[in-house]
Amino acid sequence: MTTGFKKIGLWGRLADNGVAELGLKIISQLQSAKLKVVIPEQNNIPKEFNKIDALPADELASKVDLIIAVGGDGTLLHSARKAAVHSVPLLGVNRGRLGFLTDISPELMTETIETVLAGEYVSEERLMLEASITSSEKSTKPMLALNDVALKTSHTGHMQDFHTSIDGEYVNTHCGDGLIIATPTGSTAYALSCGGPIIKPDVGALVITPIAPHTLSDRPLVIRSTSKVDIRVDPRSDSQLAAVACDGEDLGEMKRGDTLTITTSEKTVRLLHPQGHSYYELLRSKLSWGQDNRSHKSNHKLND
Amino acid sequence: MTTGFKKIGLWGRLADNGVAELGLKIISQLQSAKLKVVIPEQNNIPKEFNKIDALPADELASKVDLIIAVGGDGTLLHSARKAAVHSVPLLGVNRGRLGFLTDISPELMTETIETVLAGEYVSEERLMLEASITSSEKSTKPMLALNDVALKTSHTGHMQDFHTSIDGEYVNTHCGDGLIIATPTGSTAYALSCGGPIIKPDVGALVITPIAPHTLSDRPLVIRSTSKVDIRVDPRSDSQLAAVACDGEDLGEMKRGDTLTITTSEKTVRLLHPQGHSYYELLRSKLSWGQDNRSHKSNHKLND
Amino acid sequence: MTTGFKKIGLWGRLADNGVAELGLKIISQLQSAKLKVVIPEQNNIPKEFNKIDALPADELASKVDLIIAVGGDGTLLHSARKAAVHSVPLLGVNRGRLGFLTDISPELMTETIETVLAGEYVSEERLMLEASITSSEKSTKPMLALNDVALKTSHTGHMQDFHTSIDGEYVNTHCGDGLIIATPTGSTAYALSCGGPIIKPDVGALVITPIAPHTLSDRPLVIRSTSKVDIRVDPRSDSQLAAVACDGEDLGEMKRGDTLTITTSEKTVRLLHPQGHSYYELLRSKLSWGQDNRSHKSNHKLND
Amino acid sequence: MTTGFKKIGLWGRLADNGVAELGLKIISQLQSAKLKVVIPEQNNIPKEFNKIDALPADELASKVDLIIAVGGDGTLLHSARKAAVHSVPLLGVNRGRLGFLTDISPELMTETIETVLAGEYVSEERLMLEASITSSEKSTKPMLALNDVALKTSHTGHMQDFHTSIDGEYVNTHCGDGLIIATPTGSTAYALSCGGPIIKPDVGALVITPIAPHTLSDRPLVIRSTSKVDIRVDPRSDSQLAAVACDGEDLGEMKRGDTLTITTSEKTVRLLHPQGHSYYELLRSKLSWGQDNRSHKSNHKLND
Repeated sequence: MTTGFKKIGLWGRLADNGVAELGLKIISQLQSAKLKVVIPEQNNIPKEFNKIDALPADELASKVDLIIAVGGDGTLLHSARKAAVHSVPLLGVNRGRLGFLTDISPELMTETIETVLAGEYVSEERLMLEASITSSEKSTKPMLALNDVALKTSHTGHMQDFHTSIDGEYVNTHCGDGLIIATPTGSTAYALSCGGPIIKPDVGALVITPIAPHTLSDRPLVIRSTSKVDIRVDPRSDSQLAAVACDGEDLGEMKRGDTLTITTSEKTVRLLHPQGHSYYELLRSKLSWGQDNRSHKSNHKLND
Repeated sequence: MTTGFKKIGLWGRLADNGVAELGLKIISQLQSAKLKVVIPEQNNIPKEFNKIDALPADELASKVDLIIAVGGDGTLLHSARKAAVHSVPLLGVNRGRLGFLTDISPELMTETIETVLAGEYVSEERLMLEASITSSEKSTKPMLALNDVALKTSHTGHMQDFHTSIDGEYVNTHCGDGLIIATPTGSTAYALSCGGPIIKPDVGALVITPIAPHTLSDRPLVIRSTSKVDIRVDPRSDSQLAAVACDGEDLGEMKRGDTLTITTSEKTVRLLHPQGHSYYELLRSKLSWGQDNRSHKSNHKLND
Repeated sequence: MTTGFKKIGLWGRLADNGVAELGLKIISQLQSAKLKVVIPEQNNIPKEFNKIDALPADELASKVDLIIAVGGDGTLLHSARKAAVHSVPLLGVNRGRLGFLTDISPELMTETIETVLAGEYVSEERLMLEASITSSEKSTKPMLALNDVALKTSHTGHMQDFHTSIDGEYVNTHCGDGLIIATPTGSTAYALSCGGPIIKPDVGALVITPIAPHTLSDRPLVIRSTSKVDIRVDPRSDSQLAAVACDGEDLGEMKRGDTLTITTSEKTVRLLHPQGHSYYELLRSKLSWGQDNRSHKSNHKLND
Repeated sequence: MTTGFKKIGLWGRLADNGVAELGLKIISQLQSAKLKVVIPEQNNIPKEFNKIDALPADELASKVDLIIAVGGDGTLLHSARKAAVHSVPLLGVNRGRLGFLTDISPELMTETIETVLAGEYVSEERLMLEASITSSEKSTKPMLALNDVALKTSHTGHMQDFHTSIDGEYVNTHCGDGLIIATPTGSTAYALSCGGPIIKPDVGALVITPIAPHTLSDRPLVIRSTSKVDIRVDPRSDSQLAAVACDGEDLGEMKRGDTLTITTSEKTVRLLHPQGHSYYELLRSKLSWGQDNRSHKSNHKLND
């Protein structure tokens, strides 16, 4: 069987020794299989990669059939925004412990890549967000996010009021440090640290989670993924600015009266997993479920 | 226009003076409109209701076109299980402050009932859960729940281990006081008190929320509403029993090795709301959003 | 140097193989050091213990100079109530992973016991609670608790109202599943699962933590350890009963109108630790601090 | 009886109409009682205040016997740092709803000031924090805080590692958005929004609360108020800076390797309250205790 994966992008920070080592192994494996490999242009790459074709990062995804991202979840998040634009599937290899997204361990890497190239894999669509900031003068270019869009006050020690609307209807005025709008994929990232729930990736939902909310009843809100969320900085706000980041990368700053608009993108990311991949197993591993160290099993009498 | 609401069930604890008073007003309004009214048989009802047709509670829903529930959310939850079986729509009138489900205030009651009878209303399907306990010998009869199914240890001071599986796949072993499986409708009830998120009723999801979990990373999990959840009491558990309740009403007790199975029911509840009804407005009202009393707006200098 | 530890109580569930094995080692070590050993009378003990002096559990603490508790934290909690009455110090050996209280591992057991017997140890006073229930007819005998006193509704699916007063002043009416009053020692046990803070054992404070509180602003409250806490079950409460447990052991049940009174006891527990013992190290170990598995380090660009 | 309050500082943002109005009333009352009034120099004050003696804000506290702060809690926090240095007592009047610190309402203002001037009041010492940043080159001047010292990452979307030590002993490495060190006074402010407990002001304790902690078991830690807390920004940290604020006012920024040191100050703030003042009543009012709007009282059957 053939998968049509003929040209493969190898994505990772090759200046990192651990990533470079895994990268060379993968290149060797792919070349043995008579497949073409491309890497994104970057600084400080070890000389072993000099003979590999390199393309500007933004262009790479338009020229390959598959991207193998090597590193941590941050690396995969970065490549995902490129991959989504061109509908290129992604395979994530972690260079250390498993990530939520880079769910292939170095030990199983060669074996997994072989089976994936042979067409044996599970393909999973993950929804992405699209965010832009609109001020009285102009709008930013929409930016994609696979995990989350986070809006935070720029100034320590000052809270701000944010007005949220969903599908054009006013929802709440949030006072606090900011808001996180997360996909199910991102529900186990920043939003979880702020009290949000875990959302299984196949649920068609988003979650709006307040950061350090002043009102104690201001709790995470799960809405349909087809919703449009608008967040406006209170025009009477004392503070100057709020900063917006998509998957941790700056989208821009909001002034009083500006509006941040978030929708689900038409683009999705296609993640490839080895067969038998289990989301629940990943949760157990990443959240140390079942490895409870705290023992407060109650009072044990001698004859219990 | 005609709605086909010809025979109407008036549901409520008529032994409660406030409910009885509203009930008499409704009866008078319905009789003026030449509609038939039935009440469920119950103890201690005021004599003014003696001339109203009464049916056993379980039978009533099979004989009416609409149920008007008067009281608090608890009253509507009780009637919902009957209404769902016979696909009868429900209208909820609160006798005091608004409820999440009984969202019509006494002041607007007469006006709202009039417009609903005239066919002007918003109809909303709410999903329900169906739960049953299976032991080695037998299964309980499935019981419906509009809010939640709660499984709790019966013995103060002892935690128990519960194994969860979703769609046949093992998920986690939870150590603590129990678990709540809630619908979006129930997400603002017991589950919210245990750290669960608010889920808008139109999201096709359930949430599994641990009660006082021993493991601090054991967090609420949102899954598709089409999922089947199985919860098993650890067979090696020290404690004797765990009790299961659907919307607060006893389903039964679980022994070691028993399994609680929860699915979304094929039956739904149809709630009628006045036009212009807003879920977000209800959230703001019930959760005191925007009525923040705590003022820790930061340090104000004299010339800020 | 001599410590005056001449007669030593060995406390543990000897019916448990792991405990029995450690127990025999300890007995052998103590007898080699010409010290007397006593065990509490109990069922199903292995025959190797037949020649060891045994005393009723309640009497043992009045006859020994030191208690070595072997097992989990539950075992130490049980012995602590006996030890406190007679001011006997306690040394806790864990049969598996470290506990918060049984902080000596099997590997270091022999060595630690030797140094403790040689007078090299750190001694630490831990405060205990004293709880009793008063009804119109009578009061229960006060019961001690080293971790916590927990008051919980007896009936699944029903919340109750509890009125709290501190030092005679009304504080709040709590609606929910119950309340936990914890010492700093107990702050890492049940109270932590319900959202309470960690309190270092040398802070003179108690914490009142609501269980699944209905009001989202009903949060843990830290008060001076010299405070007297009274909790009354709302006399108009629907539900029949609330159950009270001290360190997981039943104190009794409360009816409507009954009052639970909690104060710090005049008795304390004296825990012995090996020199160099660190509370923070214990926290890091038990709470997996610094062993973070979840990686959401933000987006990594190729040239970061 | 005479209180020795002969010269009184009136503190508030007089450019705010509501504050100015209350201020004029107070001045009139104090002048009628033959007392001297001083205001801090500030911009845009209404002309009615032109004839009142004005002093630079920093100097005022050294020249008065009592400060009456008018505004919100932020105003009192600002004046508290000045008052503490010169041991001048503070009386807080709120211009709107009660604050945690400005606990005298406009309605009761005149009456309360009269009784306070007559020597009838409750005096309460509140502990303050003292914070400074030490880098390899220099240390900042220590800054006081009545509520809290907050350390936060400066860059949206990037977490940082912070190492905490208490009294010279390593405690934990926190990964997240930052840390709040709060007094009991500040426990109901920013720390409460991040999951910290409420601490009664007479407890001799501080609480360290992580902001959006990556590790879910990284929970608020209550320690003795006599402790010294050191927080160091991980020298290997990716991010550039962390910002520190005392009661919301900038202390400075921390670079990799810098250390923030926090101790309880020798200075305290003395708050005056009317007799009968109740901390618990304030909590009930500010946190809406007992005004529960959410009704999920469980399922009510017709004959309950």
